[in-house]
Amino acid sequence: MSLVVVGSIALDSIKTPAGEVNDVLGGSAIYASIAGKYFTDVSIVGVVGEDFPQAHIDLLNNREINIEGLVKVPGKTFRWKGEYLNLNQATTLDTQLNVFAEFKPVLTKGCKTNSVTFLGNIHPTLQLEVLDQIECSDIIAMDTMNLWIDITKNELTEVMKRVDLVFINEDEIKMYAQKSNIFEAIELILDLGVKYVVVKRGEYGAIVASRDDLFFVPVYPIRKVVDPTGAGDSFAGGFVGYLAKMKKYDFETIKQATIYGTITAANNIQSFSVENLQHLSETEIENMAGELKQWIKI
Amino acid sequence: MSLVVVGSIALDSIKTPAGEVNDVLGGSAIYASIAGKYFTDVSIVGVVGEDFPQAHIDLLNNREINIEGLVKVPGKTFRWKGEYLNLNQATTLDTQLNVFAEFKPVLTKGCKTNSVTFLGNIHPTLQLEVLDQIECSDIIAMDTMNLWIDITKNELTEVMKRVDLVFINEDEIKMYAQKSNIFEAIELILDLGVKYVVVKRGEYGAIVASRDDLFFVPVYPIRKVVDPTGAGDSFAGGFVGYLAKMKKYDFETIKQATIYGTITAANNIQSFSVENLQHLSETEIENMAGELKQWIKI
Repeated sequence: MSLVVVGSIALDSIKTPAGEVNDVLGGSAIYASIAGKYFTDVSIVGVVGEDFPQAHIDLLNNREINIEGLVKVPGKTFRWKGEYLNLNQATTLDTQLNVFAEFKPVLTKGCKTNSVTFLGNIHPTLQLEVLDQIECSDIIAMDTMNLWIDITKNELTEVMKRVDLVFINEDEIKMYAQKSNIFEAIELILDLGVKYVVVKRGEYGAIVASRDDLFFVPVYPIRKVVDPTGAGDSFAGGFVGYLAKMKKYDFETIKQATIYGTITAANNIQSFSVENLQHLSETEIENMAGELKQWIKI
Repeated sequence: MSLVVVGSIALDSIKTPAGEVNDVLGGSAIYASIAGKYFTDVSIVGVVGEDFPQAHIDLLNNREINIEGLVKVPGKTFRWKGEYLNLNQATTLDTQLNVFAEFKPVLTKGCKTNSVTFLGNIHPTLQLEVLDQIECSDIIAMDTMNLWIDITKNELTEVMKRVDLVFINEDEIKMYAQKSNIFEAIELILDLGVKYVVVKRGEYGAIVASRDDLFFVPVYPIRKVVDPTGAGDSFAGGFVGYLAKMKKYDFETIKQATIYGTITAANNIQSFSVENLQHLSETEIENMAGELKQWIKI
């Protein structure tokens, strides 16, 4: 059992109603890898610059995340600066692609035989390059963002057609499908041949849909949200990590995965960066998952 | 087992992306009564003017809703005119209170001994007048709206303190509690002594909370919403109707009631006025409730 995560590695500067941080560890691959590692072996594939602090490398090593696919190249690490005026919507203040602009993801040999591959939110062209390198993967999942729907929708559609599971925000799936009704939008993605569509609805939880099944999960109630950055990535990471652990991909397992993804995301948003996400115990995760299941039990 | 519904009876003129209607049957008491009647005996308390069409009285009689508490007085019936540019938000274009301005709800003798009383969305002063008349009711539920939070919050708080169950929209509870976090807002209402808080979240379903328990229910997926008017009232009506039917008010029964309220609301929004809501069968309701439970089962 193992999970390969391909995505961005960033130094984030973030302002929320709860405070402000500068150049902290972030990026889709980071959040997804740390969340996924609670359930399975994880290999991270990404790029950083020469300024990437050794402490962050140490953090990944300490968590026993395989960093063979993490390359360091000349230049500066990808930087994102954003602000949340409310906790549902980030405003991007600055994006510096830096070394990320020339990133060509390469799966290491070990990566090529794995049970689950997660293509975090990166340019669809890069996602296609990764898809071309996968020799065997039981299930391939992807995430995306509004930018790619705007500027490179055709390539994004090509990616979707080649994956098993699509994670996508509610606003984004409506935008992609050009449908205001979420259930119509889901059908349009399923029609591409995607087996599972997972709609991330922020504080309203998630919907998981296949051709024949539907499952709704609420958020785990959090009274004090500190920083929503990485919520979707830590949700996806916990989700696919659980799938890799179980090595089963039927709808019942997908439902359980949704619960576990919700729990890793709920922990992530209670601090800036990965501060809270990296300090969970198996017992905490199981207890929270049990509570969440109780709150939908009837 | 019986349910008393006090609220508005209206002639609505509504425009939605699906079409436009003029002077159709509406009002909180109408939607709640018709929804509730699928589960229990219902008595409606409200006022209409001389212009109120006999066909609407016939409709209530045909559904065997007790109209002893429905008074007809000189003048015109309450009218509301609204438009939905999107299906989540109504814009009020015109409100004519007419006979509703002088409405003094009077519970008939039969009404005074009932198992469930539902105070639909009317002025908190009127809700207090009804509360003073209730001689025995196992459970009292209420609904409200943003207008009363704006202009008569103190009286609204008095009503809340005297009821067992509060139905309230998500925006409204956040506005009332002055909290952006929904779980903090719920706690503030529970602190008033309310036993159950039911937060209506539109297309995101509902949250039911007591001091010790929590339950999330999604919407029943509807691909073609025609008119959301009365969604909250038909939800509440189905909910309290089920409670009256069961004559039990523990959290497990409350959870089931949430499911049934969701189903009556889902049927209501598929047509203008009560067109769709009045033509359900017990089998349809049970089948839809079964499906909804399946979509949260884990």
